[in-house]
Formats: sequence, structure tokens, C-alpha cells
Amino acid sequence: MRYQALVMAVTAALGMTAAQAAEPIEIIKPVKITEPEKVELGKMLYFEPRLSKSGFISCNSCHNLSMGGVDALPTSIGHAWQEGPINSPTVLNADYMLAQFWDGRAKDLKEQAAGPIANPKEMGFTHELASETVASMPAYRARFKQVYGSEEVNIDRITDAIAAFEKTLVTPNSPFDKYLEGDKNAISAEAKAGYQLFKDKGCVACHNGPAVGGTMYMKMGLIKPFHTDNPAEGRKAVTGKEADKMVFKVPTLRNIELTYPYFHDGSVWELEEAVNTMSDIQLGQKLTEKETQEMVAFLKSLTGEQPKVEMPILPPSNKDTPRPIPFGK
Amino acid sequence: MRYQALVMAVTAALGMTAAQAAEPIEIIKPVKITEPEKVELGKMLYFEPRLSKSGFISCNSCHNLSMGGVDALPTSIGHAWQEGPINSPTVLNADYMLAQFWDGRAKDLKEQAAGPIANPKEMGFTHELASETVASMPAYRARFKQVYGSEEVNIDRITDAIAAFEKTLVTPNSPFDKYLEGDKNAISAEAKAGYQLFKDKGCVACHNGPAVGGTMYMKMGLIKPFHTDNPAEGRKAVTGKEADKMVFKVPTLRNIELTYPYFHDGSVWELEEAVNTMSDIQLGQKLTEKETQEMVAFLKSLTGEQPKVEMPILPPSNKDTPRPIPFGK
Repeated sequence: MRYQALVMAVTAALGMTAAQAAEPIEIIKPVKITEPEKVELGKMLYFEPRLSKSGFISCNSCHNLSMGGVDALPTSIGHAWQEGPINSPTVLNADYMLAQFWDGRAKDLKEQAAGPIANPKEMGFTHELASETVASMPAYRARFKQVYGSEEVNIDRITDAIAAFEKTLVTPNSPFDKYLEGDKNAISAEAKAGYQLFKDKGCVACHNGPAVGGTMYMKMGLIKPFHTDNPAEGRKAVTGKEADKMVFKVPTLRNIELTYPYFHDGSVWELEEAVNTMSDIQLGQKLTEKETQEMVAFLKSLTGEQPKVEMPILPPSNKDTPRPIPFGK
Repeated sequence: MRYQALVMAVTAALGMTAAQAAEPIEIIKPVKITEPEKVELGKMLYFEPRLSKSGFISCNSCHNLSMGGVDALPTSIGHAWQEGPINSPTVLNADYMLAQFWDGRAKDLKEQAAGPIANPKEMGFTHELASETVASMPAYRARFKQVYGSEEVNIDRITDAIAAFEKTLVTPNSPFDKYLEGDKNAISAEAKAGYQLFKDKGCVACHNGPAVGGTMYMKMGLIKPFHTDNPAEGRKAVTGKEADKMVFKVPTLRNIELTYPYFHDGSVWELEEAVNTMSDIQLGQKLTEKETQEMVAFLKSLTGEQPKVEMPILPPSNKDTPRPIPFGK
């Protein structure tokens, strides 16, 4: 079968043994926080709207921790209400991804975090002004000194701290994880049937690992073309290769119930439709209604415990703080 | 002295005894939560961007609990990045206000909460669609049943729950409150001098009570006119009376260090300038630089403990949930 060849290739590439590969999805483990001061600083910066030109948009605006780490919009709202180019991927379990952004153009969370701050369509700021803003506040400077040994604030440190916070945003203890750990009653018979289908149909060839995705790039529209008005070209934008056109990072399916609308263009709102479309254009298979429901029941069992996040209290601006520019230039 | 006559009038109006009036500022007490389920539901709705047309703006967008309950902008950003008409007042300690909004057009927090949801320049939604949105989610319906006895969701219940949450957003234990409670070292000598000035100069005539404001309406520009491009007319918009033009609710000075920029037009960023302007146009007095600094030191002692708020986890939309309309109509 097609999927078995794919699974074997993936298994070999990941250096897994046959026994481990028996379950292509791995458990999400709770995170042990080793640098609490850095994580706390990163949390402040994650919620810091003064990292944007307007003083209104923070990381959390589009990766909302109340809503599965996304904004639940087809594409995001950026500075001056500009329409974003692509669906906002979830920040939850994002550290499990092989790279960041849909096209993988950032190698890790730290590199990713620098992008939106300076993107004129997103937070619309500059790294210099963002750093100057944070550095203007004594309470921030004291935290930078505590974490990095000196009061210096720069984009490297800002994004390092944000990434440290984001690495804590994992969602363990989903019903499916409990099932994998041996609690056979943790998920319904329907979900179990869905998991079997997920493996049998070949979904698991791409959606595997702890995040049930994020381990590879794959063409969107492998068997049949994916029709979209969205101009994103995927990996081609990174590699310049025509063969990488419409090749995107395989998204995580963890918490998929929360991270609608689906696909890089955010065009599909219903999980049922997303499952059927993927079966059709990636695997060339048509699911029965029962199969679709089983698959959806399985996917919903991937919703884990959401991070408990107490809102940070941000220090006040002062006369040295660059003023936000919400309107005009 | 002018301020004494004013204080006596206020004291009489509030029915205070002479002894109580000796300290015109009262302590903010911690809130006892008697209806935790309603408060939790209200917190969810306070952070619920799906109460807006775009699915992007929640109460917390402009009354950010990480930032003193404001957006720290001159005027707020609304649906489609519309420029708001007036400076966003803090939600902290707002239940102490005699009425809500700068012009007092809402009698309480519940009535206030309904305003921005349906204001085309703010959240841009309708009460009907907001209710339909919340009612579409089983997890919300279950909470409404628990709190209100039935699953019915309407704007009355939505705003009642939001108000219940907002009533918990008080900031007790400020250094100044500790000072009032007898800890004479809780504030600096400079702040003590500032408090004496605050009383002697007559600030306390308007800024009194637990919130150090919010107990009355007063003309902005009592002695000299306040120059602003902001078209807000204050109480006149509510009463229709010419005499109420530029008469606004006296804002709270609690957490004033956090709630810049100042005045209803958000035109002043520095607390020093705000103090000097108020002395000049409301009291006809010019402060020395030392007096200004003392006043500011006192005002900064009014920053209390900020509410500890764990971000709520919001239930996912489903096929019955009206879809957000971030762009277009």
C-alpha cells in the first residue's frame, strides 16, 4: 500500500525503530521549566502590544492563548487592519515543528518571533524601535539583567525570551495521549475506529510524531490540485525551486478542533470538510460519511490540556518610551 | 479657601461625617466573590473576540488587564481600524464610578458593556448576533444554565455576566492605602507632601472617594478653557443642556501611573503635564516644579495590586456559530 511505503520512508528518516513506529503518534509530554525568569519575561513580551507600531497588536493578538493559539480567522488582521497573507498557525506545540511559518522560512521559534514585529503587514514596527521601547522601561531592563546578565535589550534577547515562553505552550494529556498511555477507555470506539482509518488511509504518512504533523514538508494537492485564491507559493518562496511550489509544512493536528478555519488559506471551517478534502486531494480517496465522522472523532481526541496562563502585568511607559502610532505615519 | 468650601459641599452631599471627611480618599477593599460561576462566565465573555463583527476585538482589547485596564492609546482602535472618539477609561475599580462612560450615559457596568458590542466604530456587531454566537456553543449554553437557570443567551445575561467579572477588577493594597491604614512608612515623604498639596490645592474637591474620582461630573476647563480637537461634548450629549457642554465624569486617579495618555482626548502623555494642566485650568493655580513632583509622587502611590487573571479557555465555534467578518461586509 502507498501509505506503508511512505511510513517506512518517514520511519527511516526519523531513525525510529520498528517498535516505536508501531504507533506513529507520540505522546506530548508536559514541559519542565528550567528558566522561569526567562519564561516570565517571554510571557510579558508575548503579551506586549508595544512591540507593534500601533501599540495595539501583540503576539497574542493572532496567536490567542484563549483560542487554541490562533485567531480563528481565515487570515490575520495586521497593522491598520491589513489583511494578512496566510492563516495564522497555532503557537501550541509549535516547538515540535521542524521549522516555523507555513513555508518553514524560520528555523526555530526565536527566528519566527522576529518576523511579525517587523512585517509591515503584521505588527508594522522595527526591531530597533521595539528594542528601544522595551529598553525604556526600568522594570524590563531589570528583568533583562536578571536573565541575560546585562540590561541590554535587543531583538536577539527579545525573541529568545519569547521563544522560551512559547516552548512552554504544550498541550499534554489529551484523551488520545491517555489512550496511547494505556487507558483504553480514554477515547470512544468511534475515535478508535478513526485512528485506525487515519493509519490505514495513509494520513499518518505526513501527520505523525508528537504534534501529529510538523515533521516534514508536503505538496498541498498531491493527487489532485488544491484550488485557492491565496497566492502563497509555499517552499518555493524559500528555495526558489519550481518543484517546491505549493509545498507547505505539514500542520500539526493537535488541538485541531480549536484551530479552524483550516488550510494555509483558512478556507475551510468544518473539520468534516477538511478531512474529506485532504482524503481527496492528498490521498485520492473518498471517505464514507461514517468514516469521516470516525476520523473527526479521532481528531477531536487530540485536544489537550490548554496552557494555564496568568496575564502578565506590563510596566508603564514613560517619557523615554517611543509613543505608539496607531493612526497616520 | 476655595477648596474648603468645595470639600464641605461635597462632604455634605455625600452625607459623610466630619471625622470621615478628614480623609477624603477611602481605601479600596479586596472584593469578595459571591458568584464564582457568574464571574468565570463573565471573564470568558470579557475575553471573547467573537462578540465583535471581526472576531478580533474583545473587551480586553481596549481595556487590557495587562496594562491597567486601558489600551494606552489616545483614543481606541475599533472595527476596521476606525479611530475611536474618546480615550478608553480604565475598567479597574470602575464599579466605584457613579455612572459609566466619560459622559455617564450608562448607569452601570452592565449597561456599559452593551455599548461597544453594538457600536459600529468599536466592536461593530449587533446584540442579536453576539447572543446567537455565544448561544451556538454548547459549553457556553451549559454555563448560562448553571448561572441563570436556563440555556437562554441574550444581551441582558451576557452583559450581566461581564459586569459581574468587572466588579472583581479592583486594585487594593496600594502604598497609599497602606498609608491610610496606618503604615506611615508605606509612602515617601515626597508623596506625603503631595497628598497634603492634593488636599490643600483643592484637587480633592473632585477627586475623592475610594476611586479618587468617579463620584461626580465636573466641567473640563472650569477656570480656563481646555483646548482640544476632540469633538466630545460631555454631559450635554446626555442631557441636551448647553450648561453641560464639556462636563465630564471626574476620572479615577487610581493606577493613574498606568492609564496614560490622560484626559478624555488622551492628549497628554506625562503625568507631570496632566497635573500642571489640571491645576491651571481647573483651579487657576500654578504649581512649582517641586510641588508637581510631590503631587506625582503621591499619585504614583495610588497604584494598587493588579488583578490576577488567568486567561480563560474559550469553547470552539461550530457550524452553527455565525462566522466572523473581519474584512468586507
